[in-house]
Amino acid sequence: MKAGTVRIDGERLWQRHMDMAKIGGTPKGGVNRLALTEEDIVAHRTIADWAKARGFGVYLDDMGNMFVRRDGTDPTLAPAMSGSHSDTQPTGGRFDGISGVLAAFEALEAIDDAGIETRRPIECAIWNNEEGARFTPGVMGSAVYCGKSDLQTMLAGTDADGISMGSCVAALKAALPDAQPRALGTPVAGFIELHIEQGPLLEATGNVIGVVTGMQGNRRFFVDVVGEDAHSGTTPLSRRKDAFVAATDMARALRDLFHDPEDVLRFTIGRFEVSPGAVVVVPGRVFFTVDFRNPSADVLKRLGDQVEAVCRKHAGPCEVTVREPSNAAPIDFPDTMLDAIERSADAHGYPKMRIYSGAGHDARYMHTMCPTGMVFVPCERGLSHNEAENAEPEHLAAGTQVICDVLLEMAERP
Amino acid sequence: MKAGTVRIDGERLWQRHMDMAKIGGTPKGGVNRLALTEEDIVAHRTIADWAKARGFGVYLDDMGNMFVRRDGTDPTLAPAMSGSHSDTQPTGGRFDGISGVLAAFEALEAIDDAGIETRRPIECAIWNNEEGARFTPGVMGSAVYCGKSDLQTMLAGTDADGISMGSCVAALKAALPDAQPRALGTPVAGFIELHIEQGPLLEATGNVIGVVTGMQGNRRFFVDVVGEDAHSGTTPLSRRKDAFVAATDMARALRDLFHDPEDVLRFTIGRFEVSPGAVVVVPGRVFFTVDFRNPSADVLKRLGDQVEAVCRKHAGPCEVTVREPSNAAPIDFPDTMLDAIERSADAHGYPKMRIYSGAGHDARYMHTMCPTGMVFVPCERGLSHNEAENAEPEHLAAGTQVICDVLLEMAERP
Repeated sequence: MKAGTVRIDGERLWQRHMDMAKIGGTPKGGVNRLALTEEDIVAHRTIADWAKARGFGVYLDDMGNMFVRRDGTDPTLAPAMSGSHSDTQPTGGRFDGISGVLAAFEALEAIDDAGIETRRPIECAIWNNEEGARFTPGVMGSAVYCGKSDLQTMLAGTDADGISMGSCVAALKAALPDAQPRALGTPVAGFIELHIEQGPLLEATGNVIGVVTGMQGNRRFFVDVVGEDAHSGTTPLSRRKDAFVAATDMARALRDLFHDPEDVLRFTIGRFEVSPGAVVVVPGRVFFTVDFRNPSADVLKRLGDQVEAVCRKHAGPCEVTVREPSNAAPIDFPDTMLDAIERSADAHGYPKMRIYSGAGHDARYMHTMCPTGMVFVPCERGLSHNEAENAEPEHLAAGTQVICDVLLEMAERP
Repeated sequence: MKAGTVRIDGERLWQRHMDMAKIGGTPKGGVNRLALTEEDIVAHRTIADWAKARGFGVYLDDMGNMFVRRDGTDPTLAPAMSGSHSDTQPTGGRFDGISGVLAAFEALEAIDDAGIETRRPIECAIWNNEEGARFTPGVMGSAVYCGKSDLQTMLAGTDADGISMGSCVAALKAALPDAQPRALGTPVAGFIELHIEQGPLLEATGNVIGVVTGMQGNRRFFVDVVGEDAHSGTTPLSRRKDAFVAATDMARALRDLFHDPEDVLRFTIGRFEVSPGAVVVVPGRVFFTVDFRNPSADVLKRLGDQVEAVCRKHAGPCEVTVREPSNAAPIDFPDTMLDAIERSADAHGYPKMRIYSGAGHDARYMHTMCPTGMVFVPCERGLSHNEAENAEPEHLAAGTQVICDVLLEMAERP
């Protein structure tokens, strides 16, 4: 099977993007489709309906991961797989995640349209709760599938309203009564994921295909600061246990700790919740999160291990508790996958560059299970996790063509 | 009429406190009774029922202020009035506000029990939305009553769920169909308010009666910081418009601006709301509040006028908007009221001290309308706006006795 044998349909791919963007679409043109909300379940159901219309199989595992399968000639072989996630951030865009799902689905359709029989099955995966916005931690579905997180612990997790992941997975199963069960950890022959870059490099350099070499490591911390509620008019500052003051001192000291003159290190405080949150009440409690990423395992260890001490040092009269809900090491994808992606890009004449992933993706966990690679396509101004997120139809089509080529190649590997 | 002629009933007063604490009572022993919520309306209805059982009149004005009236012998004279508010902060206590209402009500009952006829009517007021926790600004009911705020503007204000004050006042009226209408601005002969100190001085000095000499001024600011949502893993720090970073820089600079080595100045950031509030999204928006209080009009002007410039200076790549929803000048209560309070305290042998109010109270606005004074009673560790707020039954009884004495004295003034 040579690259270019099957041509994907760029118009169909774009139309599918526009159809999916309506599910949880926001007035500002973005998407709010948190993991396994009603909207996200509709997204799953919609893709399952497309699959059924094609005669593809639909499978669901106990973690809420969904798989669309086009059978191969040898049912004993593990599938070649592509895919990503359908959930978004609360103010997310139309491409983050769903583009990888739709690229995989388009590859299945294009191969089907071409009437090609593959040796291995080819599958499109929708991994559950990649974003981690509604349920923490993120990248949950692929982590559980690959045995890196515990199923029961993840199902027991709840969102801000106390709704459990377990009950959401049950709702997904109920919406997909026609799906067949899939055991967690069922072998996969190879995995390739398309994603928008979520950074500015491809656009800035005029490249269309990002050949992802690896993924930076990522440590996350949850910090609870407890002081004492008090009256803002009567309580002298010297007698206060102001959790806001302590938490902002911590935030400032963490900025210093994580300062990187080369601007490679990523440090973000994304949640910072002040209680009780009233104009005339000295805050007695703050919860905040630290997201810290770096390509270097040494830097991740050296700086990450100081987070708790820095918070303690700046707690003032307050109590502080620091937890670390996730700690993912940096990874490098295998050369075989990089080469396969580059061969496809070259065959079609797509401008390409090797690129490092700043974000975490489901490919992180699939990498622990099978040969894995990623394809980035450009997004406007590098904006992502933003309702203004945008991508060009022809870039998505080019990336999807590469996904299709690599899937076909993987599907023939012995 | 001499001080001490009528003795208030301390046990009844305490029981009324415990009854009211159940309305919106929290598991931690505090009270969550935001202005004109269902719970706050039940509190009004409960007091109206007590009033009816006594044969007292119940009145309601268009701003949702309620008045319980025991008639005097001359219906043409303005009433002597006491009272406070029934609403609380979200994590409020059992005494802030309601003690002033129950002290006034107990005075009416004690005078009634004694069968005394007064020249002027005596009234117990429940001012609407003193706390400003659900609707801003606070001290709303008395401000509108005294013509210092506009009725229609205040009724149009909405809470976080978009519910208007106007609809809440309508709900209060519906719950009190037996209340007679009271025109806003109806003259009052004199006003005295009991309140817990909400500070540590009375407890520390062993005094029971705080003779309040005046009230510090209070300026409030609302700050909106707008940056841009971005992906926390991919966006270099140099390219971010991180509203959290800008807002914490502003907060830090404001702390420096308001630093007071004498610890008299009160500066609090009580609300600080980060959007979208996700672990892996660089925050595109922060809203925060500044509460600034000082006894000196000069200090209020000099430092308060710098808030906007300080915020602008530290906005970095973000946009910032600063509003000032309220600006109240410091006030001094008249000597006649201070003298009347001290005469009563001395007559009963209550240890007393002159004290300055750090908090704002409804007495601030009543002071613009008629001779006004305040009585503070101790609260444990000075804690207030806190579920652990506590006060001693005998201290509340002593303060209430002073309220009763001063009301009787005012009721005979020509």
